[in-house]
Amino acid sequence: MAAVPRPGSSPRTRIKRLATKTVRDTGVLYAILDAGLVAHVAVNGPEGQPYVVPVAYAREGHRVLFHGSTGSRLFRGLAQGVPTCLSVTLIDGMVLARSTFESSMNYRSVMVLGSCTLLAGEEKLAALEHITEHLLPGRWAEARHPSKKEAAATTVLALPLTETSVKVSDGPPDDVPEDVELPIWAGNVPIAETFGRPVDAPDLRFDVPVPDYVKRWTR
Amino acid sequence: MAAVPRPGSSPRTRIKRLATKTVRDTGVLYAILDAGLVAHVAVNGPEGQPYVVPVAYAREGHRVLFHGSTGSRLFRGLAQGVPTCLSVTLIDGMVLARSTFESSMNYRSVMVLGSCTLLAGEEKLAALEHITEHLLPGRWAEARHPSKKEAAATTVLALPLTETSVKVSDGPPDDVPEDVELPIWAGNVPIAETFGRPVDAPDLRFDVPVPDYVKRWTR
Repeated sequence: MAAVPRPGSSPRTRIKRLATKTVRDTGVLYAILDAGLVAHVAVNGPEGQPYVVPVAYAREGHRVLFHGSTGSRLFRGLAQGVPTCLSVTLIDGMVLARSTFESSMNYRSVMVLGSCTLLAGEEKLAALEHITEHLLPGRWAEARHPSKKEAAATTVLALPLTETSVKVSDGPPDDVPEDVELPIWAGNVPIAETFGRPVDAPDLRFDVPVPDYVKRWTR
Repeated sequence: MAAVPRPGSSPRTRIKRLATKTVRDTGVLYAILDAGLVAHVAVNGPEGQPYVVPVAYAREGHRVLFHGSTGSRLFRGLAQGVPTCLSVTLIDGMVLARSTFESSMNYRSVMVLGSCTLLAGEEKLAALEHITEHLLPGRWAEARHPSKKEAAATTVLALPLTETSVKVSDGPPDDVPEDVELPIWAGNVPIAETFGRPVDAPDLRFDVPVPDYVKRWTR
């Protein structure tokens, strides 16, 4: 792969607040994006009003792929290359310091600035496969693929990972020395996202069991 | 409480895409906000570039409270009342339709448009208590409260819930009739966020057990 800018390499992605949580490792950027399912994507709207929407996404190489409806105004803007900000936040737990001020959360977060490219033709279909396989590993081989009409109704976008920032907060609370002497419990409570048991659709026509590739999913 | 606008009451919050998932019930708006921990908050930046950041928040009545550093440029803008968009998204599961096109996620999502008010004095401290008690129920009574210096370093904002939209997707996949005849498993896989076992801080000075109010937390 060609050399690509590391996280935090541009003036506007250099983290100023809680700079000790900054990570400049591209591997960590990739790992966070690969662990997430949903990103929040923003555009500047008219009259100073921004808009943010959640989108399902997948990382592929040094870019993020996501899709939406061709009928969406926000997606039409993105397809035309208006500047965007994409944010992925994974919550890993609550952090209980002795003080409320130092109490916080453990998290892994990514911010990407840039403009999207509209994908078409074979590249568009390959991107839809990639997104499906990130969200539903194993599903593309079995599910019915998009028809021409369905594909035409779908906007598929690629956002390059050229301007990014990464912040990671983990581990125990970081109290000021005086507070450590207080007789108050301190620590952290992990949060994890887990998959439950698959639920059959009520309109299943055949006696098809839950596929093995679905049973293998874990979070 | 005075009458307040329901979700989806303004032209710019009327949902056009997947309109069947629109909810116009203020109780559902409140329930989603009360179940979340982190919101994504956006502002229009210069040169058409938006910025989105994750924030911990709490709902109080018909507004959302959140805080950040007085040193943050984004928070300085919010404190001055620039228009913002706050988005809360809870992921409830993966939805496997027979087609990739109809496959999606179950989710509950809220979008709030508006401008924040900067809180000060007693109202600011009450808001910090409210946020702490939403995120860490029971903690305010035990933890050390903010010092004057800490409070001065914290920007606390209130965003009214006057212009909102709510979308909820739940239940089984919704395949087109022809696809239901395909011998492909379909259904959904629930996702849940759960708390793990509390972890003592390594610098605990006393033999303090994990407090009961922490043991009672469930997600």
